[in-house]
Amino acid sequence: MSFDLQEYLQSRKEVIDQALEQYLPPAERYPEKIHQAVRYSVFSGGKRLRPILLLASYELFKPDFHPALPFACALEMIHTYSLIHDDLPAMDDDDFRRGKPTSHKVFGEAIAILAGDALQTEAFSLMAREGLKSGIEPERVLRAIFELGESAGLNGMVSGQVMDLEKQGREYNLEELEFIHRHKTGALIRASVKIGGILAGAGEEDLTALSEFGERIGLAFQIMDDVLDLKGDERLGKPLGSDLKKEKATYPALLGLNKSEGQAKKLVAEAVKFLERFGEQGEVLCSLARFLVEREY
Amino acid sequence: MSFDLQEYLQSRKEVIDQALEQYLPPAERYPEKIHQAVRYSVFSGGKRLRPILLLASYELFKPDFHPALPFACALEMIHTYSLIHDDLPAMDDDDFRRGKPTSHKVFGEAIAILAGDALQTEAFSLMAREGLKSGIEPERVLRAIFELGESAGLNGMVSGQVMDLEKQGREYNLEELEFIHRHKTGALIRASVKIGGILAGAGEEDLTALSEFGERIGLAFQIMDDVLDLKGDERLGKPLGSDLKKEKATYPALLGLNKSEGQAKKLVAEAVKFLERFGEQGEVLCSLARFLVEREY
Repeated sequence: MSFDLQEYLQSRKEVIDQALEQYLPPAERYPEKIHQAVRYSVFSGGKRLRPILLLASYELFKPDFHPALPFACALEMIHTYSLIHDDLPAMDDDDFRRGKPTSHKVFGEAIAILAGDALQTEAFSLMAREGLKSGIEPERVLRAIFELGESAGLNGMVSGQVMDLEKQGREYNLEELEFIHRHKTGALIRASVKIGGILAGAGEEDLTALSEFGERIGLAFQIMDDVLDLKGDERLGKPLGSDLKKEKATYPALLGLNKSEGQAKKLVAEAVKFLERFGEQGEVLCSLARFLVEREY
Repeated sequence: MSFDLQEYLQSRKEVIDQALEQYLPPAERYPEKIHQAVRYSVFSGGKRLRPILLLASYELFKPDFHPALPFACALEMIHTYSLIHDDLPAMDDDDFRRGKPTSHKVFGEAIAILAGDALQTEAFSLMAREGLKSGIEPERVLRAIFELGESAGLNGMVSGQVMDLEKQGREYNLEELEFIHRHKTGALIRASVKIGGILAGAGEEDLTALSEFGERIGLAFQIMDDVLDLKGDERLGKPLGSDLKKEKATYPALLGLNKSEGQAKKLVAEAVKFLERFGEQGEVLCSLARFLVEREY
């Protein structure tokens, strides 16, 4: 029986969407505007790659992924908060994301800021609340919360975003570019994979392997994001070349398209070697890693 | 020996400031700008009332407050994040806070948004990391994290802030005003007190009493904040009457100054009754509650 990746992605996306639907307050709750704004961005057609990675990593060690589902949703909430804030006029000033007007375009800047803020809070709150009921050892839940915090905060995503803004329209070298990509996008992707292992009770050596794997696919993912900004198709939901227009620090701008794609593929090839220790169990994560560099949107 | 509240507040503030100093990355860390912005707002002369309440509540049950210190600092980080974001041009558009230019005035809007975002992340990350080392049962740490999340997110502070913005320059009734105050400020103050109890291993009845106490002093605190906006002294660090100018929903605007002060005092009188069960141990919290309505800045 061959593994149908598209079918797998679709069915996992449905499970995650259902869980998010359940974890977020209804759009009719008072004050309605904030709940509508939160839901607008969470359900705007994301591929759910990060939560899918988390669940796949958990399944390396455990047959039933359900105890990890709230954590997968929390990860997606953190990702969504970061997108809402990144799009703000003071940041990247983007009017469209995934083919739809961005949060501040629909709800105004104040509500967009608060919707991002709230999604971050709810992510941590959800992990603590559901973690207590999940049957997962509470020490492991705390370690997962810490790991997500580390990847999203001053040692991760926020610092990447700071440097991304700092380098816009300015000179940068490969080291600075790598810092941006590893922090802005890479850290959260690495955390996705590592948290799956932490929650499943993986040993330290397995966690190190997952971390090395995640580190490389995280960087490869952002390099491909840069590449797709130049040669993606309409499914990206935003105008091509927008990084170029904003004079963003990107791999294609520094190394050219071919070298960038080559670099992403090399990273994925390196990454999957770290999965060898998991044997057949590692094949799903391996397919997901390859998908990251072969996707067209 | 009589209890010197001013001395107590000062010595607790020093302990909390020292701990915050230790928990935040140094200002020289790369990328420097974000660490400078975070520190600028955290060390801008806050009174540390929320963390002081948390520690006092913990001390109802335990002789040494140190295990609760990281949680007290996390609370202050959440409070600081909310101030940075509240001051943004898209929100309250304030140029000064505590007599100093606000974060976006000094660092620009993008960095101010990111500094607020990062402080929120670091707060949760800190509780998880230090909670694991604190010797406090991990279930209680998780419950404390959940409690803080609940008070800061969609069921608390964020929704209060949404309605605060919504009602600016518009008509409002007492019920709506109470919603704003209970959520915007009250929820985090109530959580301060409750989290102290949770971490100390308080029983459910004690937690209910702390929650009722916190609920009332939280509302009283915000009513007095409204009052002080009209009659405070220069130690407030911002121009008097700024709520009035912005047509904010406030107690004095709806009920007048005298009735508002009366309401705050009544709430504190009700609140301290819930401390009776703790006997002499409750006296510090009782003094703190009275201080909230007697302060002049």
